[in-house]
Amino acid sequence: MIILKIGGGQNINWDYIVKDIAFLIKKEPIILVHGASFKRDQLAKKLKHPTRYITAPSGNFGVYTDKKALEILVMVYAGLVNKQIVAKLQQYGVNAVGLSGADGRIWSGKRKEYLLSSKGNKVNLIKDTYTGKVEKVNTKLLKLLLDNGFLPVITQPAISFKGELINTDNDRNLAVMAKELKVKKLVVLFSAPGLLKNPKDESSLIIKINKNKLDDYSNFCQGRMKKKLMGAKEAILAGVKEIYWGDARIKNPIINVLKGKGTIIS
Amino acid sequence: MIILKIGGGQNINWDYIVKDIAFLIKKEPIILVHGASFKRDQLAKKLKHPTRYITAPSGNFGVYTDKKALEILVMVYAGLVNKQIVAKLQQYGVNAVGLSGADGRIWSGKRKEYLLSSKGNKVNLIKDTYTGKVEKVNTKLLKLLLDNGFLPVITQPAISFKGELINTDNDRNLAVMAKELKVKKLVVLFSAPGLLKNPKDESSLIIKINKNKLDDYSNFCQGRMKKKLMGAKEAILAGVKEIYWGDARIKNPIINVLKGKGTIIS
Repeated sequence: MIILKIGGGQNINWDYIVKDIAFLIKKEPIILVHGASFKRDQLAKKLKHPTRYITAPSGNFGVYTDKKALEILVMVYAGLVNKQIVAKLQQYGVNAVGLSGADGRIWSGKRKEYLLSSKGNKVNLIKDTYTGKVEKVNTKLLKLLLDNGFLPVITQPAISFKGELINTDNDRNLAVMAKELKVKKLVVLFSAPGLLKNPKDESSLIIKINKNKLDDYSNFCQGRMKKKLMGAKEAILAGVKEIYWGDARIKNPIINVLKGKGTIIS
Repeated sequence: MIILKIGGGQNINWDYIVKDIAFLIKKEPIILVHGASFKRDQLAKKLKHPTRYITAPSGNFGVYTDKKALEILVMVYAGLVNKQIVAKLQQYGVNAVGLSGADGRIWSGKRKEYLLSSKGNKVNLIKDTYTGKVEKVNTKLLKLLLDNGFLPVITQPAISFKGELINTDNDRNLAVMAKELKVKKLVVLFSAPGLLKNPKDESSLIIKINKNKLDDYSNFCQGRMKKKLMGAKEAILAGVKEIYWGDARIKNPIINVLKGKGTIIS
């Protein structure tokens, strides 16, 4: 089984991705996880509630998800983008079922009581945050769908143990899913050819990373890539053998990355 | 089995509804279908693309769903409202799975090539319409979920045979679902006590309608109620024995309507 995650960046080519899925799914079951950050940010701007980013004192980078931001996220991730992907898969003959992590408690965890946000020397305590960390996966529902020929297409939000919708991190959720489903192979595609030594130079691709030396690469990871690196570390700890990072904008993006056109962590 | 449909009006009390579902589901499987028109209209207004209504030359009343209106509908129905309902059900211990009609092709049908809109003596042809009529139901997926203890929570959009997201009519979809699942009992709740002789007088409730005389009541049905009446006729033809129309704003709304506090069509 492959867990495939597609980022939510601007130039993702879903036609190319879906063609590859329609081909590969004949040989191996796939679970698809997707983001939608670009379109979320667009809607947030239109609704005059632009996405706000915060940096924790630890240096971790995240989104400040208050109630309104959560509603925008739910509309775009679980609504618009999820159903557009489902429709495209259906066009290619793949019987996709789009779900949020809240459905059937696919992804559940603890809601954070607060976030810390640092600005210069000041640290702010943010209480109205609908974010959390997934701890449990409803593997029964996922297996039920897979065993009956459906492709699960999963996205935010997840659900808290108290039944609140929460924003969690897709990259880190991959690790929890891989662990509970005993998946050995992750494919993660986004708007870059893989991990770059210099984010501005697409020819500076790092081709291979030793899975035990992921920490050595933290200097090359800014912003969202930091989360991907964290997710990769957690996935390796969870028993994943190979992680493929590659380009979601090119033709045959999944087939290419599996052939080595990208960054392989193994 | 009960197919339960809750309208998308302004004063729907989801706490009361979910409490009843949590109680009733112990005895009988339930499929929940919901609307979201009030919140859809709110978002459409904010995005400066207000919902436009059209009247066909036949007198039928509908929504003009162009591409942008479809995107707004998908965000609010399949995104925000569907996931808020799922979260509330989870809070009450019901393992709900929210789905659009496009997921797993639960609801599929033909997209309309055009709509006719009449204004005075003029008739306009509208081509950029993402609407259609559901003809097929994926009963396999619904049974799979029901048999494994999940409550399906279904809403717009449906999917066309070509794989396009389309807006269809929830009330008429109930009839198609009832037929294919051999369901004998429909419960339809909305922002009124049932069918009223005078829409402005909530004490003018019609308590009982003979299922063979539904046409006699078309004079009492304006706007959306016309669609409900059409859906009821189709459901009776599809083999449904009892349809309960009642109030989604009161305490114990489902238990009350099943006890006769509303309009019974039988």
